[in-house]
Amino acid sequence: MSVMRIGIAGLGTVGSAVFEILADHPQFKIIAVSARDQEKDRGLNLEGVRWVNDPVQLALSPDVDVVIELMGGDGNPALSLIREALQRRKPVITANKALLAYHGFDLACLAEDNQVPLMYEAAVAGGIPIIKIIREGLAANGISAVYGIMNGTCNYILTEMGRTGENFETVLTNAQKLGYAESDPSLDIDGGDTGHKLSILSGLAFGCVPDFKSLFVEGIRSISIEDIRLADELGYHIKLIGQARKNASGAILQFVSPSLLPKSSPIANTHGVLNGILIEGSYVGPSFVAGRGAGGFATASAVVADLIDLQHGKNILPFGMPARLLSSTQKASLEDWDGAFYIRLVVKDRPGVIAEISPILRDSNISIESFIQRGRSMDQPVSMIMMTHETKGHNILKAITQIKELDCIMDDPLVMPVLKI
Amino acid sequence: MSVMRIGIAGLGTVGSAVFEILADHPQFKIIAVSARDQEKDRGLNLEGVRWVNDPVQLALSPDVDVVIELMGGDGNPALSLIREALQRRKPVITANKALLAYHGFDLACLAEDNQVPLMYEAAVAGGIPIIKIIREGLAANGISAVYGIMNGTCNYILTEMGRTGENFETVLTNAQKLGYAESDPSLDIDGGDTGHKLSILSGLAFGCVPDFKSLFVEGIRSISIEDIRLADELGYHIKLIGQARKNASGAILQFVSPSLLPKSSPIANTHGVLNGILIEGSYVGPSFVAGRGAGGFATASAVVADLIDLQHGKNILPFGMPARLLSSTQKASLEDWDGAFYIRLVVKDRPGVIAEISPILRDSNISIESFIQRGRSMDQPVSMIMMTHETKGHNILKAITQIKELDCIMDDPLVMPVLKI
Repeated sequence: MSVMRIGIAGLGTVGSAVFEILADHPQFKIIAVSARDQEKDRGLNLEGVRWVNDPVQLALSPDVDVVIELMGGDGNPALSLIREALQRRKPVITANKALLAYHGFDLACLAEDNQVPLMYEAAVAGGIPIIKIIREGLAANGISAVYGIMNGTCNYILTEMGRTGENFETVLTNAQKLGYAESDPSLDIDGGDTGHKLSILSGLAFGCVPDFKSLFVEGIRSISIEDIRLADELGYHIKLIGQARKNASGAILQFVSPSLLPKSSPIANTHGVLNGILIEGSYVGPSFVAGRGAGGFATASAVVADLIDLQHGKNILPFGMPARLLSSTQKASLEDWDGAFYIRLVVKDRPGVIAEISPILRDSNISIESFIQRGRSMDQPVSMIMMTHETKGHNILKAITQIKELDCIMDDPLVMPVLKI
Repeated sequence: MSVMRIGIAGLGTVGSAVFEILADHPQFKIIAVSARDQEKDRGLNLEGVRWVNDPVQLALSPDVDVVIELMGGDGNPALSLIREALQRRKPVITANKALLAYHGFDLACLAEDNQVPLMYEAAVAGGIPIIKIIREGLAANGISAVYGIMNGTCNYILTEMGRTGENFETVLTNAQKLGYAESDPSLDIDGGDTGHKLSILSGLAFGCVPDFKSLFVEGIRSISIEDIRLADELGYHIKLIGQARKNASGAILQFVSPSLLPKSSPIANTHGVLNGILIEGSYVGPSFVAGRGAGGFATASAVVADLIDLQHGKNILPFGMPARLLSSTQKASLEDWDGAFYIRLVVKDRPGVIAEISPILRDSNISIESFIQRGRSMDQPVSMIMMTHETKGHNILKAITQIKELDCIMDDPLVMPVLKI
């Protein structure tokens, strides 16, 4: 078996782990690397490995057979590196979800035009081979939905809030200390990272162009410890869910939203930094997979799996079908989501509040399944939780718009979908 | 893309479902079929499809490119059909776990000698792409354990016993009426089917020859409703678990045994006819997958996934490594299992029973974590449940041998491992 000569761009936790794993795989030889700081001690033996300052040089070097892109970022230099490599018919392996969420279509076209593999198992759900499962394992199925927990940082924070009773800010600070959250955590906690991954899975599952801009994205900043407690009381866990679903008319709805899941569901039982994703296939029914969605070695495991596939001669189209046949998707909104909803209102604690809200719900055709209000002291703010029966998102948004105008309402209402699985 | 001409042997629920799914895949054309009874109405349009009485003819027919074997059985004609096909360099797709558990090594060698794919995604866990996940998705990992629920019939029976409080025989009879259990259920409920699947997964995960005879196999006939209730009280569910694990000395232990799992574990929450399997990888850590492990369409989904892989030019070695390099395994026994145990003794309800049993446990170095005895009436049989701390299986078997000799013991003791995950 001939040796595959590899260039790696990016030597962070994932790049370093790939480097370490490949030490046990003599059929793969790392020829050249590129990273931000050559002086940094990463604990790697870089002897005999060429250092290049400009990562794009990896694509141009004649002795590099395969480019592994682990720099991240949704533009250059990652983008130009991958383009240059594909144009030179060098297979590319990347873990870069942001780049694929914005440029996945263009890059897939380029890979197809040059008949060269573009592989990205590591881009979604770290060590879980979710790309392979959807694209190959369930290839015979029409997929009706793919949804789940795709961001370990958010899942860690929500799990810890439930476990410790601490509020969002405190848990986030701890997560940052433990290395489970970035110093700038916004890409994770505002749902962007989940959205990047979801747009890739949606592309694979439904044959549509990955398009981050067509997603509805809501993060977890507004989830209070009270929401977690009251949801628990009603039999649910709150998780940040990325969800792509084909509705009755065939349109693909893509949402990222904190959501309530019944405690009995496998996704609700996916705790801490783990990811858990459910796929509904026409023939297999619901299939669930869970594992480490992040971390150097788990993600590197997916990178090396792609390398091994490459070595076995695999050359499957990036989205399992010609990229130019991918359909476009329309911008989703919570209005398009039909189902049950959790609504938290912060109201002034005084008699008659329910009498003000109820007619609005009735006139919007919304019926309430559960209702919790924990009274405190007169005229102080108090949370009022409502769980609706199945209804149309359109009705909910209409009602909320009216409810917000009531002068008993003291804060922005929080609305979350309730998933019944 | 050229059309692949297919011969299918076996038109039961899986074969019929493959037939139906392929109607939507014009790149695959079913040329010929073989099944037991040509007269039977299967609701399939067999017009233009050649019927052959001897399935081996499918391998010999020059117009058949690929043979799909869905007859089952651990010997001929399935075995000779597959052999003839591989010798003629025709790719084979099979769902036959029993055959692979006994002849997997020989068939893999034959496939490799003829450089032709032997594919069997459908043989384990139906629609869950567990073969692909282990062999390709986690290819970079050393695997330390693979275990879980691999038989939907047993899981349905145990789940229903817990849900309804009915005993084993009643639930089995209902399962037979509903089609979830065969009229002769022994292959399922005595653990053989789980063992067949486990020996295949073990071969893939550990690079050892699939060898059903080296497994310790215990089924679920002896599980009483009382076991299920008391395990529940202690915080556990009882599941039939197939488990392959590398121990500290590197030996591969393969067990099929009803086992206790903490209710918080994903396997314990896999209910009804579903399968759920956990894989422990050196880099990814524990990864869990669950879904429909049986049923015509779920299993057919895996068969068609193999066909699609074949169409993409895939030709991976059946066990991901040369079959002749697979290691052999040694016969496992409960003696080799180190961990906690659940022990149910049926004793005569009279004072002093504990005083008779305790010294034996002490002398075997076994300490008890939980103990439940529900007294009934004097001198009548009563169940005494003990959950041990971690200990050696060797110690447990030694103690049980002595305990059985006590004259307060009224029935064979039941011993089950307790999995801590």
